[in-house]
Amino acid sequence: MPKLSDAGEKAVIQHLISLFDPKSLQDIGDDCAILDSGDSFLLVTTDMITRATHMPENASPEDIGWYAAAVNLSDIAAMGGRPIGTLFAIGLPADTEEEWLDRLASGIHECCSRYGVPVIGGDTKENPSLTISGTAVGRVPKSQILRRSGARPGDILAMTGKLGRGIAWELSGDANAILRVEPRVHEGQLLAESGAVTSCIDMSDGLSASVHHLSKAGNVGFSVEADRLPLLDGLKASDREKAMHWGGDYELLFTVNPKKADSLFQSDLGCPVTGIGTVTEDKAIMLLKGDGKKHLPDRGYEHFRGARS
Amino acid sequence: MPKLSDAGEKAVIQHLISLFDPKSLQDIGDDCAILDSGDSFLLVTTDMITRATHMPENASPEDIGWYAAAVNLSDIAAMGGRPIGTLFAIGLPADTEEEWLDRLASGIHECCSRYGVPVIGGDTKENPSLTISGTAVGRVPKSQILRRSGARPGDILAMTGKLGRGIAWELSGDANAILRVEPRVHEGQLLAESGAVTSCIDMSDGLSASVHHLSKAGNVGFSVEADRLPLLDGLKASDREKAMHWGGDYELLFTVNPKKADSLFQSDLGCPVTGIGTVTEDKAIMLLKGDGKKHLPDRGYEHFRGARS
Repeated sequence: MPKLSDAGEKAVIQHLISLFDPKSLQDIGDDCAILDSGDSFLLVTTDMITRATHMPENASPEDIGWYAAAVNLSDIAAMGGRPIGTLFAIGLPADTEEEWLDRLASGIHECCSRYGVPVIGGDTKENPSLTISGTAVGRVPKSQILRRSGARPGDILAMTGKLGRGIAWELSGDANAILRVEPRVHEGQLLAESGAVTSCIDMSDGLSASVHHLSKAGNVGFSVEADRLPLLDGLKASDREKAMHWGGDYELLFTVNPKKADSLFQSDLGCPVTGIGTVTEDKAIMLLKGDGKKHLPDRGYEHFRGARS
Repeated sequence: MPKLSDAGEKAVIQHLISLFDPKSLQDIGDDCAILDSGDSFLLVTTDMITRATHMPENASPEDIGWYAAAVNLSDIAAMGGRPIGTLFAIGLPADTEEEWLDRLASGIHECCSRYGVPVIGGDTKENPSLTISGTAVGRVPKSQILRRSGARPGDILAMTGKLGRGIAWELSGDANAILRVEPRVHEGQLLAESGAVTSCIDMSDGLSASVHHLSKAGNVGFSVEADRLPLLDGLKASDREKAMHWGGDYELLFTVNPKKADSLFQSDLGCPVTGIGTVTEDKAIMLLKGDGKKHLPDRGYEHFRGARS
């Protein structure tokens, strides 16, 4: 009997999608589900984080709380939305100390406050292993919504911020490095308002997996220029390849109409934005490095079977 | 150091509420969070169910899936809302068989389809113990929303359906009895449209706990007439007291303006509706039985410390 550990998370999710309502199919492929709401779309997302999968041993409860909020806000950001509320269902062992829960809640609250989003509800249950399921609700004007689909040959591939949180964590052992992610909430809205962005995703699964997602959704290929990938301070050029396949950066990866690119790149988005490649008609996803060129494999992290190599 | 097992779930939730945004306080007290959306309110709720807490050993995956969907839809129903989408974050052990997950998904799908609600998104993660966190989104016209607050002295206390799923399960050992709950989605909307209902809650925590919730939210008392409590077929009058304190019935408990009660009780809600008491100015919550009268304690199930006695 096939087990989930054989299939991997993406296959499991694809399979689940096939079991549900076909009308929802295209929406399930995006970072958030989409509901019609007059002039705007409502965006809704739920992300579960678990002690086993996401939390370094030395993670503080504040860091875990921050992360649980940030990953959900990041999904709203990836579609250009303004988050309007979050909810958290928290499963906890019965012997959890109240102080620990207070600190977890203060991490959730700190992140949501930073981005101006109220915590509007939740649930707590007893569970053998810490499990936090966040829900974020957002809103985006219909004309501005960013989807995974939409990239056109000739568009510029770009990203916010820098790559390499996973490697920074490996080097430092500091849980902050991977848990204190900054969801690009403000930046996502500016990208949506610019009218220059043709597709967008957050890089929670890693750069390589995210490029593959945009490729599949847009039915296009990509050339990614390895030497242009921006790395976090303290990382070396030799870390680039690894950084492409690590998940957890939660930066936005997006494509830009070349005619509108200048004004976008010259505007102040509040964080660095870097052009890292181009969209191609040829469906292949190529990594350009010096004079060389090779296929960029899809090697992001997958739950149930771990990182693929 | 105090642990959650000392405090009980309600104290934990109250404590969490105090840590979050005071503006959200009143909304967190209801079955759903409320967001402004033009002429209507958006309702959002998240409920986590866990292998440890909610699932009899012999529960089928279809039953578990149905239950995970139903408890979230029930929260929307309790506020008079029309559910417009659901999402499910599912944590599963890596050795889960694919067929088992298919059956779980088919239970979720069956319940959502029954109530005309699309599954619009979700997440799956590896987790040592099965954990399903559902989210439901609904909409209700602003003038029709049902809240826990609003009961006025002289109102009639009423409920949909019948009591006693927990006891039926104890007697039969059949997991269906407590997992195949019927969220009162259609009935909740009719109650909201009637203009006759002054407050409402779903009885997920049991009748006694739910009356206490309405009492606290509305700053009123109640007289509950034990002999009028409608029991499921196969239960005896002597089961009544126990049935009041069991959670899991997911019927709606609501208060009705006496001037509008006749037309409401004469209308076809699609399920039995029974008047079981009255709202009193005196804040006490009394149980009337034959000629006797005693306080009705708040003895619903609480996570972290189990049923109280």
